[in-house]
Amino acid sequence: MEWISKSKVMIVGLGLMGGSYAKALKRLGYHVAAIDIDPEAISYALGAGLIDEGYTEVLPEAVESADALIFALYPGVFRNWIEENQGYLRSGAMLTDVTGVKTCVVYEIQKILRADVEFIAAHPMAGREVYGVKNSDDRIFRDANYIVVPTEKNTPEAIEWCKQLGKILGFARISTCSPEEHDRMIGFLSQLTHCIAVALMTCTDNRHLAEFTGDSFRDLTRIANINDAMWSELFLLNRDVLTEDIDLFISEMTGLRDLLAKGDREGLREKMRLSTARRAYFNKPGK
Amino acid sequence: MEWISKSKVMIVGLGLMGGSYAKALKRLGYHVAAIDIDPEAISYALGAGLIDEGYTEVLPEAVESADALIFALYPGVFRNWIEENQGYLRSGAMLTDVTGVKTCVVYEIQKILRADVEFIAAHPMAGREVYGVKNSDDRIFRDANYIVVPTEKNTPEAIEWCKQLGKILGFARISTCSPEEHDRMIGFLSQLTHCIAVALMTCTDNRHLAEFTGDSFRDLTRIANINDAMWSELFLLNRDVLTEDIDLFISEMTGLRDLLAKGDREGLREKMRLSTARRAYFNKPGK
Repeated sequence: MEWISKSKVMIVGLGLMGGSYAKALKRLGYHVAAIDIDPEAISYALGAGLIDEGYTEVLPEAVESADALIFALYPGVFRNWIEENQGYLRSGAMLTDVTGVKTCVVYEIQKILRADVEFIAAHPMAGREVYGVKNSDDRIFRDANYIVVPTEKNTPEAIEWCKQLGKILGFARISTCSPEEHDRMIGFLSQLTHCIAVALMTCTDNRHLAEFTGDSFRDLTRIANINDAMWSELFLLNRDVLTEDIDLFISEMTGLRDLLAKGDREGLREKMRLSTARRAYFNKPGK
Repeated sequence: MEWISKSKVMIVGLGLMGGSYAKALKRLGYHVAAIDIDPEAISYALGAGLIDEGYTEVLPEAVESADALIFALYPGVFRNWIEENQGYLRSGAMLTDVTGVKTCVVYEIQKILRADVEFIAAHPMAGREVYGVKNSDDRIFRDANYIVVPTEKNTPEAIEWCKQLGKILGFARISTCSPEEHDRMIGFLSQLTHCIAVALMTCTDNRHLAEFTGDSFRDLTRIANINDAMWSELFLLNRDVLTEDIDLFISEMTGLRDLLAKGDREGLREKMRLSTARRAYFNKPGK
């Protein structure tokens, strides 16, 4: 299936990310349907013109009419949905997702999925520290990375289709990697950083410091405003990788602490120079 | 001395912060002179209209003509400057600074300073991750905090004068605290966060991850682009506080790691909820 504008797309799970996909796809001329158990999310999205049709439960005809389905659900809910409703999918339908962990999701979904439809996983590396369809904003895709996560079960056509989706949504950079590589990277880049932000807020009652803070503390703790249901699930689904990353990070912090305690100025400066040199690689594309 | 526009201001040290002060004060109609050992900094600032006069060495007449002097130097350099040049200061001159640590600077300067001039310390909690007068930008003061750091030696007039300076520079919030309170807070809010950013970059060679990163990692490591000469000095001048903060933070990270390793979902969620609740206090004033 090509990303031609006559395609009918169904979004399952209409939160911040599902809503932002809907917004982008509607603007591009696609017919967008959505399912969410929350009637308020559906009625908001209909009223705001984010979707053409909306349902608070699974309507077999609506599922069957979709050429493409985008799952923006918590991992456990995603698996259950497939088990219960895959019988309604049209043969040849293309499925993708936005899930933040992959190893424990992708193989399982592909194992239980019917042979005449295909699931190709993806992770849009974009988000906001606010939640819900009302905060949908497809501008978060600009300058952001989109990762396609195929397995041996995926066809070249599906991989290409998924890359095209990232492109039309407006992502700046499309990459590909295996589920295992994905989870290793995300453990470090996203989960460890969220863990650090939480620890900065919980290690001491720092509320009285608000009037003295500069931007560095604000930047490091922006993501400390965290959806506890979603992130605890993501952390636990990537537990082995994340505990290793935390250990690695703690060991480096301990090293910096020891340089400081010893008064080793040159050792500290060397670490800072290495930090500066590496950080240059992380500026946004084109900036 | 009031902040009336006929005041002559001298800025000693024309880097990012000195240049940003110059820009703001020039715009407000003050006569601004500057001293910096780098001829390029001075000629740039003259050419860009940031200053009215500039010197690459201490000119006694220029120092004597200043009603107010703003020191934007590394702590050690600041002390030496006062020792060598305070004889040129006009009687009644008001001195302030922008130094990022206070306890080891303020008492020392006040101890060696002539009795007929006054030094009132301040810390503008604003900055950029780029350096030098060419990156000067007085918009960094908007929405930012300005901390006046008096001791028992300071007069109420000097404290008021310094608060006024913060106000006319455009800071959103002016606070006051002792040097010890300042260093305790700054250890946590600023130095610990810089240490974390550095550790994230140095704990592993992560350059190949650049194409996969999202905003959270970029935000947490923005300040990993760090001036090693300045920050190693600031870290070492606040060594006891900072090592304590690092220990506190490491202990909290270890606690999160253990909740994760045990699979304690509710424990993780509780930490995340506490994090979210506290983070709400840190939004910028008026936002």
